[in-house]
Amino acid sequence: MPRLREVGEFEAIRRLARRGVEAPGVVVGSGDDAAVMRLDPDRDLVATTDAFVEGRHWLAEWMTPAEVGARVALANLSDLAAMAAVPRWALVALAVRADQELDELVELERGLERVLGANGAAVVGGNLTAVAGESSITVTLLGDVERGRAWTRSGARPGDLIAVTGHPGRAGAALRLARERAAEARAAEWRELLDAWIRPESRVALAGALAATGGVTAAIDVSDGLIADLRHLAAASGVGLEMERLGADDPLLERAAAALGAGVDDFRMGPSDDYELLVALDPGRRESCELVVRAQGVPFTVIGTVTGDAGRLALARGVGRVPPEPKGYDHFRS
Amino acid sequence: MPRLREVGEFEAIRRLARRGVEAPGVVVGSGDDAAVMRLDPDRDLVATTDAFVEGRHWLAEWMTPAEVGARVALANLSDLAAMAAVPRWALVALAVRADQELDELVELERGLERVLGANGAAVVGGNLTAVAGESSITVTLLGDVERGRAWTRSGARPGDLIAVTGHPGRAGAALRLARERAAEARAAEWRELLDAWIRPESRVALAGALAATGGVTAAIDVSDGLIADLRHLAAASGVGLEMERLGADDPLLERAAAALGAGVDDFRMGPSDDYELLVALDPGRRESCELVVRAQGVPFTVIGTVTGDAGRLALARGVGRVPPEPKGYDHFRS
Repeated sequence: MPRLREVGEFEAIRRLARRGVEAPGVVVGSGDDAAVMRLDPDRDLVATTDAFVEGRHWLAEWMTPAEVGARVALANLSDLAAMAAVPRWALVALAVRADQELDELVELERGLERVLGANGAAVVGGNLTAVAGESSITVTLLGDVERGRAWTRSGARPGDLIAVTGHPGRAGAALRLARERAAEARAAEWRELLDAWIRPESRVALAGALAATGGVTAAIDVSDGLIADLRHLAAASGVGLEMERLGADDPLLERAAAALGAGVDDFRMGPSDDYELLVALDPGRRESCELVVRAQGVPFTVIGTVTGDAGRLALARGVGRVPPEPKGYDHFRS
Repeated sequence: MPRLREVGEFEAIRRLARRGVEAPGVVVGSGDDAAVMRLDPDRDLVATTDAFVEGRHWLAEWMTPAEVGARVALANLSDLAAMAAVPRWALVALAVRADQELDELVELERGLERVLGANGAAVVGGNLTAVAGESSITVTLLGDVERGRAWTRSGARPGDLIAVTGHPGRAGAALRLARERAAEARAAEWRELLDAWIRPESRVALAGALAATGGVTAAIDVSDGLIADLRHLAAASGVGLEMERLGADDPLLERAAAALGAGVDDFRMGPSDDYELLVALDPGRRESCELVVRAQGVPFTVIGTVTGDAGRLALARGVGRVPPEPKGYDHFRS
């Protein structure tokens, strides 16, 4: 199979970029100096960028190129979900080695496009460059939201409830299992756990349904780790948080923690990029929120309350002790 | 001076991202899951992304961190200029080593912000990650343009004129001088040449003035090299090009070529990321176009004509011979 060194940059771009793809709102797509898009006049533009680096954000022995592409897309989609935005258009910057096989790179790009497409977004442009070090993918995802209706991290008010989708902590546990128990992690019993890390689910549709209830006052996605992201939400809103629990009962995570000689809360409190939604809720709309989330078959757990005690993150007795430092993933210290 | 390993990711982001900066059209800036912006309803959105890699797109011994940041900004601004778009908002993804000095990174970011700011754009978001290999910066620049009025590469029609700003070829000559004659290249006589490579000028204001004349039928920026970009323009428009010359008289480039034992057209035909504007003009508006460009003190040279002979790039006798292959810069073969 040919490598980039053999085919060159321009042939690689020809294979990677699908020109002439018709996508809603696209006036000029890939192949010009820039892409041109048309937004509805009653919508705000929402933009996020996220980079994945080989060996850090993905382990080649655990993910196919298509899964890597899909996961980068999911990370960006998760940021838009946390703003209640609808994904529309993406720009994809690839930095790869000259010995990269072109077919693998095309597979990665197609995996990325597939997940974006399933969530309503299309690739409208990109960039391809060579590196000698690790490969990386940087995706900028653009979306839109009804004018003035984007969720932010800063809207939580004392008395609001805190709720989370899915099972935070699983992605971090899966990563550790893969790193420390490579052979064992491939067993069928860990498949669901590994999926939480390799193939996280999009929360875009869920965010749309939640937004329609009008019950969400603030939101953030769990991409650093639950405790770290709770702290981010509290800091941005200038509030405190009183946590009754750190998630739904999760026998799978309990089993994984036991197998790794850790406690379940070690994973819920530590770094874990689960791409779940962490939201503050108007308590009067709790039921309508629970209804729409569960209608999509997604776990949704009220885990705490917002307090006026700015900066204080308290855990109810028996839940464990909050680590003194925000224990998110730190790229430069890990 | 502290390195990223010492201060960690979150402190670095705190220093790099300016939260709460008020910029026109920004509803939610840096610090949330995504940025939210408001576009005027009569404008189209324009988006481009460009990545610079250490050692490839910049040589640390020739550029200060602020100059590196400025040049990345200019590369992106050049893409928007080629669409006649007004720059508005940028997202900046940095991938750096843990031993990177934080102060240098902040200097780079400030250099980038300064050039963006001078061209009307503000940073609204970004990403910071660690790499073990070369550092890189990926900028996504968003702008807007009057609805339906973006320039493209595909609008050139037989009979149009081809014109170029500035002195294409200088950036490529400067890079070669720096690589091959390091000490000599630092002499005062090469300062203007080196500036064409290190500190290219923004053509954003120029593009705006040119757009107002209504005389431009197609545009591309010279970022690969004049011949390569002429080919891109011709291919996108489905036309041929008959070139009378490859640029204005350029004694500086002639001197540089002589010093390097090359011909001036070697640089005009070879890879050179000059970030100049290459445009097709309605011949009836030639004079008004020339007027507005020269009013800004920028050289503007009509270098050829568009023909109906699709795919044919011909050079007038005495101009030299067109290389058989598009001689742009190829990242994977250089």
